[in-house]
Amino acid sequence: MIPGYHAVMEALVNRQVKIRELWIASGKKSGRIKESLRIAGEQNLPVRFKKGAELSCLLPDIVHQGIVALAEEFVYSDLHNLIDISLKNREQALLIMADHITDEGNLGAMIRTAAFFGAHGLIIPKDRSASVTPRVLKRSLGACLRLSIAKVVNLGRTLDHLEKKGFWIIGTSGQDSESIYQVDWNRNIVLAFGNEQQGLSRSLQQRCHQMVGIPSPGNLDSLNVSVAGGVILSEIIRQRGFAEK
Amino acid sequence: MIPGYHAVMEALVNRQVKIRELWIASGKKSGRIKESLRIAGEQNLPVRFKKGAELSCLLPDIVHQGIVALAEEFVYSDLHNLIDISLKNREQALLIMADHITDEGNLGAMIRTAAFFGAHGLIIPKDRSASVTPRVLKRSLGACLRLSIAKVVNLGRTLDHLEKKGFWIIGTSGQDSESIYQVDWNRNIVLAFGNEQQGLSRSLQQRCHQMVGIPSPGNLDSLNVSVAGGVILSEIIRQRGFAEK
Repeated sequence: MIPGYHAVMEALVNRQVKIRELWIASGKKSGRIKESLRIAGEQNLPVRFKKGAELSCLLPDIVHQGIVALAEEFVYSDLHNLIDISLKNREQALLIMADHITDEGNLGAMIRTAAFFGAHGLIIPKDRSASVTPRVLKRSLGACLRLSIAKVVNLGRTLDHLEKKGFWIIGTSGQDSESIYQVDWNRNIVLAFGNEQQGLSRSLQQRCHQMVGIPSPGNLDSLNVSVAGGVILSEIIRQRGFAEK
Repeated sequence: MIPGYHAVMEALVNRQVKIRELWIASGKKSGRIKESLRIAGEQNLPVRFKKGAELSCLLPDIVHQGIVALAEEFVYSDLHNLIDISLKNREQALLIMADHITDEGNLGAMIRTAAFFGAHGLIIPKDRSASVTPRVLKRSLGACLRLSIAKVVNLGRTLDHLEKKGFWIIGTSGQDSESIYQVDWNRNIVLAFGNEQQGLSRSLQQRCHQMVGIPSPGNLDSLNVSVAGGVILSEIIRQRGFAEK
């Protein structure tokens, strides 16, 4: 289930997942709802009107805004496929690894940010991590459908494989690390983020070629993980010359 | 009430608000709790042990982690004071204006981000805006206590006043605006962010000397407001040479 106006519109327009039905809370008549009904009509999608309370019951604690798309299951990318595609890009590869991010809001925001800055893929672990749930879809405003996401059994072994493929592995950490503004981002990169509590696990840190951090003029020691992600990705695209295009 | 370990520790160490009492959920014995008890002891603060359920009842829907500080009321800064202090800094002034951000999570994250990057103050409106509540304190991890925050009646008139004081007013917007990487950030700046739905209001846009946006290689049209804030503040401190320090 894909809840919320932006996520549903992204799914309707983007067509990476197949939508089976559109559910609208009866009584909803805003311009936004009409626009999604129009597109659903063009695509011959069945529309069902349901009570708002029924939608809330199906999606507890999620702000669905009276619109939900029932979609085929989210399809994760194959890791090797994702790597190949990232290496075939015109610009240098940029992959992101999220080390056991458990908060769905943070994962959704991270996906949104990665898609915004045109990262070529996100790698998450199968266990002890949030995955692409309706809440994550909603929080990413549907950006899950724009970003290739691979689920792997073992992040460490995946980094070993990426190293063999010629990737430069950069880990993020707050302490004693190189400033993100002084790193040379013009190579094929995997950027590994730690989780909210423990940061990057030691076994992944040992596999990093370089640890980087964001210097804080305000002397605070941490930023929210999706904000840190945005800041670093922004510096990468600036260095890669996207800013001048 | 200041909920959560990080926010309480920030309040204990920083001492910008006066703490009256520390409340701990009975049975909590982690190292982090012991550390905060030690500091409370040094400061001769009364400590009360309460049932976890009682804390949850006092702070509904807030993850208090079994630790809450009861503090004197949060003290907002006087606008003129805040402006004077920002202009007396060694580096050029950097103020942030948040145009009716209603989501407490977003405001808290924005405060954290602004404090991290050493902004000199945040200006929010009295009405139709989130303000510094326990949830905002928690979400900012206590960074509210590191950042001067002023509440004003009218944002437009405040911008008029800032313009007279020689500030360059920059608004953020996704559309048809100058890339943040090409703006000259080396002057006294007020950076105005719009709210989650409508963006920056027209009356504030008309007062901006310049509108800026973050270019998206992924062709998405929006970032979360606190992520966008982090990205722009990062570019400002990079241009101002903090990265080399």
